[in-house]
Amino acid sequence: MPELRKDPVLGRWIIIASERGKRPTDFVIAETPTIGGFCPLCPGNENTTPHEVLVYGRESYNPDSPGWLVRVVPNKYPALVIEGDLNREGEGLYDKMNGIGAHEVIVESPRHEDAFSELPTDHMLLVFKAFQHRIRDLEHDNRFRYVLVFKNFGKAAGASLEHSHSQLVALPVLPRKIESELAGALTYYKYKERCVYCDIIHQELKQDVRVVCKNKHYITITPFAPRTPFEMWVLPLNHSSAYHEQTEEQLRALAEIFSESLCRLDACIPNVPYNFVLHTQPLRSRYMEHFHFHFEIVPKLTSIAGFEWGSGFYINPMSPEKAASYLRESLERIS
Amino acid sequence: MPELRKDPVLGRWIIIASERGKRPTDFVIAETPTIGGFCPLCPGNENTTPHEVLVYGRESYNPDSPGWLVRVVPNKYPALVIEGDLNREGEGLYDKMNGIGAHEVIVESPRHEDAFSELPTDHMLLVFKAFQHRIRDLEHDNRFRYVLVFKNFGKAAGASLEHSHSQLVALPVLPRKIESELAGALTYYKYKERCVYCDIIHQELKQDVRVVCKNKHYITITPFAPRTPFEMWVLPLNHSSAYHEQTEEQLRALAEIFSESLCRLDACIPNVPYNFVLHTQPLRSRYMEHFHFHFEIVPKLTSIAGFEWGSGFYINPMSPEKAASYLRESLERIS
Repeated sequence: MPELRKDPVLGRWIIIASERGKRPTDFVIAETPTIGGFCPLCPGNENTTPHEVLVYGRESYNPDSPGWLVRVVPNKYPALVIEGDLNREGEGLYDKMNGIGAHEVIVESPRHEDAFSELPTDHMLLVFKAFQHRIRDLEHDNRFRYVLVFKNFGKAAGASLEHSHSQLVALPVLPRKIESELAGALTYYKYKERCVYCDIIHQELKQDVRVVCKNKHYITITPFAPRTPFEMWVLPLNHSSAYHEQTEEQLRALAEIFSESLCRLDACIPNVPYNFVLHTQPLRSRYMEHFHFHFEIVPKLTSIAGFEWGSGFYINPMSPEKAASYLRESLERIS
Repeated sequence: MPELRKDPVLGRWIIIASERGKRPTDFVIAETPTIGGFCPLCPGNENTTPHEVLVYGRESYNPDSPGWLVRVVPNKYPALVIEGDLNREGEGLYDKMNGIGAHEVIVESPRHEDAFSELPTDHMLLVFKAFQHRIRDLEHDNRFRYVLVFKNFGKAAGASLEHSHSQLVALPVLPRKIESELAGALTYYKYKERCVYCDIIHQELKQDVRVVCKNKHYITITPFAPRTPFEMWVLPLNHSSAYHEQTEEQLRALAEIFSESLCRLDACIPNVPYNFVLHTQPLRSRYMEHFHFHFEIVPKLTSIAGFEWGSGFYINPMSPEKAASYLRESLERIS
């Protein structure tokens, strides 16, 4: 059983998911992505994954068979396991609990070679719907406090399978980053009685130097204090703390802006590895006036991922204004 | 001039150090280290670096000439610049200031091929002395609040030069990670009236399952909630919040345990890239009963550096107990 452990100074939780029998050198992963070979996420291989928990697009009732457009399955090598009790306990001054949670894979397309950024809007919409659907479903499990939705694209960003997919982890604790964000946003709200993200959007629209693109419902900006070149945040223009409450019309606009933002990024640095993470409210929260859900898209540029994540201190060799101007011009340059 | 910018929600400071004329694709760094070729850190090439600020081992008075054992020079491509005023200002809701600071390179040996972990104790001692010396010196500059000492070993950990070196950055702000640690440690102290790190050492010695090695003055442990396999912390056994106040005898013991710890790591995963970061008290602090300086050594295993640093949530495939047992046995296995 995996274990959740808390750092006694920082309060940071980490998952110890021991893989039995691994030797130390097994943790060094080759940099070159495996291309070709057997793919467990391709149609026809449904029986090699755990049973699907959600599927879109298949017309017949034949679970775990081809014909789907988007398919969600439990991770075969989960970081957390779904069955059991949390069993919170101490070990001297340390705190730990059983690694109870859900770890699921959202297979974004049946076509092995599809890139997420190139999915047609109608199809990408299904992926964003699947995120909502799974969050709503997992919210009923009182053991869980948060659903972390994320995507690793490219080996350097942590993707271990080539077939386009994203992941979610339902957690019995709040990730520290989300906790800090909620706390920071609440402090601002108490002082100003306004949502800090709404103020950010307002200022970005006015200054118009870090706006990458926008549509009726969403805006993509390069944040004022980005960790990496080309970091982007995608935010809803209207205040909302809960991603899973977005309407279908809104999600369609989200698919459009996501697709555009990623294509602009790809035009600047072709095939750049990236991570995106959804920052939304904790499960079973009431409407939060101080928090504003958003996605953070962080390109993985190996040159600057050195000591930064160990020290919490980032050196970014490109201003967000410069990055935004590249991103704004990128598609125009190509066409 | 570089710029320091603060994230308005998290309070995290980052440095924007724009490199002029760089194109987006210039930020993609090749994975293969450059071997051979011209090395600006080798003896004989002293005139290709900025003027040295500290040198050990050279007998004659001939600045910027060979004959040294350890040499400290300003970084030729600094993230922060030493001259100017901070000029703190707002930009709407955002905060920024000039990127004033020091960025120095500690050249650890004149021999290009020396690995830090293999330096003789007497020589490694000089490196640890140089850290102290520079911290004491930079403490006199009232613009600076913190000196971050770190090492990137291996390309994957961010090293851009092969010649063994470490770095320091003197900052006009506290790095967020250090700030969180100080706050966490203070909370514990207020509650228990004891240093949390002293309590950790006490418990680790009693449990004896995460101790890697120890000597008269220092202990190396794998922390209870590590972010990566083989993460190690090196702590002084006796409470001390200020690294720069360690005696020469203590520093010698530090060199010994560092060397042993890194050799044990190398025996487990040969040539693994790693970062180490010194966590010490802020500049001009008085003695802190609640904080305990230490080094954190974090191996860079690409498989697990994916979304974690973006979300603040870590999945570690190896328990620290298992890692400690590998590290304890590693040298014995080889000899």
